[in-house]
Amino acid sequence: MSFTIQQVLIPVEQGYDTVDVQIGHDPSEPDEGHRITAIGADLDVVGTIVDGRNKLLLPGFVNAHTHSSEMWQRGIIPPVPLELWLAELYDFIPLNEEQVYLSALGTAVETLLSGGTSVVDHLVLIPGKELETVAAAVRAYREVGIRAFVGPLIQDEPLTSGIPDGGTAQTHKPYLRSTKATLELMQEVINQFHKPETGINVMVAPTGLQLCSDHLFEGCAELSDRYGLCRHAHLLETKAQKLLAEETYGCSAVQHLKDLDYLSPRTSLAHCVWLDDTDIQMLAETQSTVVHNPLSNLRLGSGIAPILKYRQAGVNVAFGCDGSASNDSQDLLEAIKIGSILHNTTDFEYQHWITPRESVEMAALGGAKGLNVQDQLGSLTVGKQADLVMYDLTNLSLLPRTDPIGLLILGRPVNAVSYAWVNGKAVVENNSVVNVDLNALRQALFNQSQWSIKRQSPTVAEVEAHYRSVMQLPAFTQGYS
Amino acid sequence: MSFTIQQVLIPVEQGYDTVDVQIGHDPSEPDEGHRITAIGADLDVVGTIVDGRNKLLLPGFVNAHTHSSEMWQRGIIPPVPLELWLAELYDFIPLNEEQVYLSALGTAVETLLSGGTSVVDHLVLIPGKELETVAAAVRAYREVGIRAFVGPLIQDEPLTSGIPDGGTAQTHKPYLRSTKATLELMQEVINQFHKPETGINVMVAPTGLQLCSDHLFEGCAELSDRYGLCRHAHLLETKAQKLLAEETYGCSAVQHLKDLDYLSPRTSLAHCVWLDDTDIQMLAETQSTVVHNPLSNLRLGSGIAPILKYRQAGVNVAFGCDGSASNDSQDLLEAIKIGSILHNTTDFEYQHWITPRESVEMAALGGAKGLNVQDQLGSLTVGKQADLVMYDLTNLSLLPRTDPIGLLILGRPVNAVSYAWVNGKAVVENNSVVNVDLNALRQALFNQSQWSIKRQSPTVAEVEAHYRSVMQLPAFTQGYS
Repeated sequence: MSFTIQQVLIPVEQGYDTVDVQIGHDPSEPDEGHRITAIGADLDVVGTIVDGRNKLLLPGFVNAHTHSSEMWQRGIIPPVPLELWLAELYDFIPLNEEQVYLSALGTAVETLLSGGTSVVDHLVLIPGKELETVAAAVRAYREVGIRAFVGPLIQDEPLTSGIPDGGTAQTHKPYLRSTKATLELMQEVINQFHKPETGINVMVAPTGLQLCSDHLFEGCAELSDRYGLCRHAHLLETKAQKLLAEETYGCSAVQHLKDLDYLSPRTSLAHCVWLDDTDIQMLAETQSTVVHNPLSNLRLGSGIAPILKYRQAGVNVAFGCDGSASNDSQDLLEAIKIGSILHNTTDFEYQHWITPRESVEMAALGGAKGLNVQDQLGSLTVGKQADLVMYDLTNLSLLPRTDPIGLLILGRPVNAVSYAWVNGKAVVENNSVVNVDLNALRQALFNQSQWSIKRQSPTVAEVEAHYRSVMQLPAFTQGYS
Repeated sequence: MSFTIQQVLIPVEQGYDTVDVQIGHDPSEPDEGHRITAIGADLDVVGTIVDGRNKLLLPGFVNAHTHSSEMWQRGIIPPVPLELWLAELYDFIPLNEEQVYLSALGTAVETLLSGGTSVVDHLVLIPGKELETVAAAVRAYREVGIRAFVGPLIQDEPLTSGIPDGGTAQTHKPYLRSTKATLELMQEVINQFHKPETGINVMVAPTGLQLCSDHLFEGCAELSDRYGLCRHAHLLETKAQKLLAEETYGCSAVQHLKDLDYLSPRTSLAHCVWLDDTDIQMLAETQSTVVHNPLSNLRLGSGIAPILKYRQAGVNVAFGCDGSASNDSQDLLEAIKIGSILHNTTDFEYQHWITPRESVEMAALGGAKGLNVQDQLGSLTVGKQADLVMYDLTNLSLLPRTDPIGLLILGRPVNAVSYAWVNGKAVVENNSVVNVDLNALRQALFNQSQWSIKRQSPTVAEVEAHYRSVMQLPAFTQGYS
């Protein structure tokens, strides 16, 4: 359905303009989506009228890295480093498909209500029900109407392989699924679910070098080439992963990924905390994208990613929430705010600091670039697809009136998303998600969970002493677990 | 009015208990306030019943440092260091009393809706209308019903004195008000407004060493002793302030404050980013409180305060939002979350990291200690005053159910404050502020402001070259302003 937003504020080179924005359908387009057909003062009305007065229109942002089903563990894992946090996470009972569906719904809702119109779900698979897991998440995303990039989280090495050996000759049990079976699974996921024209995109997304063989990365790169899929992975989230890569490959993890031909303009890499200048140069040369997950990096003590260096080197940067077990929210505006101001402490040269307008560009166009759709999404440009968000500037959290983008990015907007459209379809209207009954969702999440405190974690007990030893932390008789 | 909260979740040593909480009035108390009279299972009903089912009850938090009238500049100042940010701030037209009233109202509302029941307002005074400024803020706080600690922001040296000289023999214009006149003003503020029994407390609050003479600090300490007032000041927020103190006193700023006898168990010091181990020891010995303003410290690039070191040294730490021109929100839960997880990047020993329960204790009891009211406030203890907040655990942002305090502190609660009481009086009921018409407040804030972008700042133009020179940043012909 075509529509015209009237008298809405949009950012322009020098401040803001009040304009009309026409959203229409180009019948020659195979995807039947809606595009921005005109932006200007006093346009003719096309389709229905949307009142844009006292509202700010921006391109939709991308939640460029999350794990939706971690919503079931949000708030429960204590603040510990990634390697121990992962061990905690493994101890939770495997989810069922209904839970995968509900947490994907919840992730999509929180993303939409904080300015995101696309989500990258690095989706944890239920062992033995892998295709059903993907089907459940896809069902949720299609229902909500968010644009989704689903990368099944695959690995072919067990959890304990992710901690450096430190010369102790650790042995590891084999992973539950072979490399070959994993690649066959990916082939099937692509066959069944990769339908970009419906807003559902499959990505190849090996967990990361710390838990994946070279064969798995190579197989994923090959699938990516064959089907034109985006590539995703975790990269150097922690110091332990840096040590592990040096131990395993005798070179940096980035060099190894480059040697595997995994880096490319359609590769996005989550975290990227422990890269050195040479690594950064390789990301720039290969036009790879860094996904910055600042809140998760703080909560897990992973470190502060060198985002200002990435920007100076010309590396594209997008923002992600990361999974709710390590953040513990899917509020994209929060990730953008903290992911922007955090870096002011890393460089006294304030001319390098990220401005609110730059944050918006990173969150929208930076996100689109990382997904190789910068020609279609990420800016208010005539001809681009209508993934748009309109913020209510009369909201208390955005008052008094000053610079709307300054308020949005540096403040803490509460219920400020008034409208959101994905491919021209309204997914938020009058501050409410259109296609989801939020009360029913809350009730279902409530019913399928119970209040609890941290449990004893057998997997943490297994790995903690070794972790402390390789990280050169003092030994202690009683672990935190 | 007495009341009984039934079947509410409270944290106990091992997890959570579901209890009733009685709030009653002790007629022997001169302040006519209400106290917690009993906590336990199945208590007799006293007064009205409040349904606590599926809710979490915590002591009210303290927003331990803010400047309410900066709400008028939120979102507008670009990310620049404090010294240039202050220059920007000085260029804004002085406020009128109505604006002071409205921004105090807004600050109180945002604080209440994010778990705070007390606010420390380091209040910027309108030149020539100082008493009227205090009166306007006090009127707002009494109306809302929040407990307020108002410290008029006083100084006796001009803005340019706050930047190190760097051997350049800068000259400064005298400040608009003498030291003597400033202390007389404080005496009058105390006479007129210090009424703890009504929830309004006056503090002495010289801006900080960088803009105040020794005489002003000594005069404030003397007033504090005479009237039993809390003491407040900014301390070592930036590297420039550290350089300035060494230049001016030949010792650290903390040593100088100690020599002035300003440090004490009722002294709270905002920021404390640039202290060394010896300084930290002095804070511990004097039992002074650090107010951690993490978001402002990030936005202004001031640095990461060594909070884990403070805690290890036994220094009390509280949380503040700081003014909305440097944050740009008064969401206390956001400050608590970031102020807790930020420090995980500063110490690989995760046993030192702040747990969500410790965050709650810092925000509540830590805040109360900094205001010398730890015997009256800051914990769910029979006999303490009823400054309480009840969170709705069926809120989407706090679901699915896991550890309620983990969800509250590590998540991003949205509209989660269901009830708040100050001194036993309901100030939030059913997620709405009781005593303020929010629509009218929004309308007033809207009407008295206009959308704008950053202006050329004449004061920044005056100080920027000198600032860059003393901070050893490369000279450039065109400043950011």
